[in-house]
Amino acid sequence: MKHIEIIAFDADDTLWHTENLFQDIQKRFSEILDQYAPHEEVQARFHQTEMDNIKLFGYGVKGFTLSLIETAIEISAGKIVASDIHEIVMMGKNLLDAPLDLMDGCADVLKQLKNDYRLFLITKGDVLDQRNKIEKSGLEGLFEATEVVQEKDFNTYSALFKNYDINPQSVAMVGNSLRSDILPILELNGAGIYIPYHVTAHFEIVEENISNPRFYQLENISALPDLLNGVTVT
Amino acid sequence: MKHIEIIAFDADDTLWHTENLFQDIQKRFSEILDQYAPHEEVQARFHQTEMDNIKLFGYGVKGFTLSLIETAIEISAGKIVASDIHEIVMMGKNLLDAPLDLMDGCADVLKQLKNDYRLFLITKGDVLDQRNKIEKSGLEGLFEATEVVQEKDFNTYSALFKNYDINPQSVAMVGNSLRSDILPILELNGAGIYIPYHVTAHFEIVEENISNPRFYQLENISALPDLLNGVTVT
Repeated sequence: MKHIEIIAFDADDTLWHTENLFQDIQKRFSEILDQYAPHEEVQARFHQTEMDNIKLFGYGVKGFTLSLIETAIEISAGKIVASDIHEIVMMGKNLLDAPLDLMDGCADVLKQLKNDYRLFLITKGDVLDQRNKIEKSGLEGLFEATEVVQEKDFNTYSALFKNYDINPQSVAMVGNSLRSDILPILELNGAGIYIPYHVTAHFEIVEENISNPRFYQLENISALPDLLNGVTVT
Repeated sequence: MKHIEIIAFDADDTLWHTENLFQDIQKRFSEILDQYAPHEEVQARFHQTEMDNIKLFGYGVKGFTLSLIETAIEISAGKIVASDIHEIVMMGKNLLDAPLDLMDGCADVLKQLKNDYRLFLITKGDVLDQRNKIEKSGLEGLFEATEVVQEKDFNTYSALFKNYDINPQSVAMVGNSLRSDILPILELNGAGIYIPYHVTAHFEIVEENISNPRFYQLENISALPDLLNGVTVT
């Protein structure tokens, strides 16, 4: 791939598994609320509450957990018992304390790419959560910088690249979210390498067909070196 | 005050009121749990839970709220009703959404000092919470930099000053916490200007008599210019 000097990686569900843990909790959450509302309504109400709370809470496990509790009380019209709420609190704490599960081949790919590219990690969310995960990953030393931002959009990326004196056209962004990782870098005339994860957070879903010569899609992170080396990827 | 070129301000309960809002919530929390345990036991159990959770949650409103909920369920042995937990969630949300109440004279003092000193703001806590408060304060433009850190200790300050190429001996740190604002800067051979707030978070309390020629104590932030100008402060 021509002109690319910098590879900026998303972290959650790109370098390591995250969303599956959130979805497991939401599945258990629906079971707890089974007697009050059908699964689909529970999920829809939770998604609405989570979106309404994002401005106050930001992204991250603590806000996620508080939104679950708020939804549970409202859906059950105050009938949910304290032990169920306790279980929700503990699921949140366990999630914060969970071991980190790296994507297959991730560390090897990063080590290989580090020889030829400047590597950045750009992740969104609660700073403490994200810093803890970066530390657990053992990957920090492979990156020139690791940045935790509140929102991944055109303005955030512009400011961040400017801060490092980086021309966005020399950047390939790698991530699992079209909305947060891919569309902004394409708008900045960089390259977007989309590696879908098998589940996507509801607030990251975009319905869009991307037709852009700087857009690429891969099955998994292990295919990245070949793509960058210009080997045809099917 | 000789050699001082930089004044680094704590924010919560130094530039604006915060702890009184947390304590109001804890007071209401004790009332909610009145039927299960005496006030002192409720507070002690909450403080213990909050401390136990700091490593997972960090400082900030969301972690504070989750620790209240966890404590309420445990103290009531699961008997607390969902509407009470809902009230706790809403108190947390209201706290995040509360207007910012600046200390009397704070903006004027900063504007005056900005003529003669480089001003920094160094605050601890949840990054989103703290960034929102800095924005609400309208004071950001008065500071050369505003930094949100996870813990305010010798290592954090050392790294931060090094990052800005600052000699700590040229720094006066102004704050309401001996533990977080004063003792570390004295250890770094800077000056510590302690302005106690009328209430202190339990995790900030230290029992210590400070005898150090670079330690100062003031009644309020309005007395700061005179101290820095060498006017005798009693």
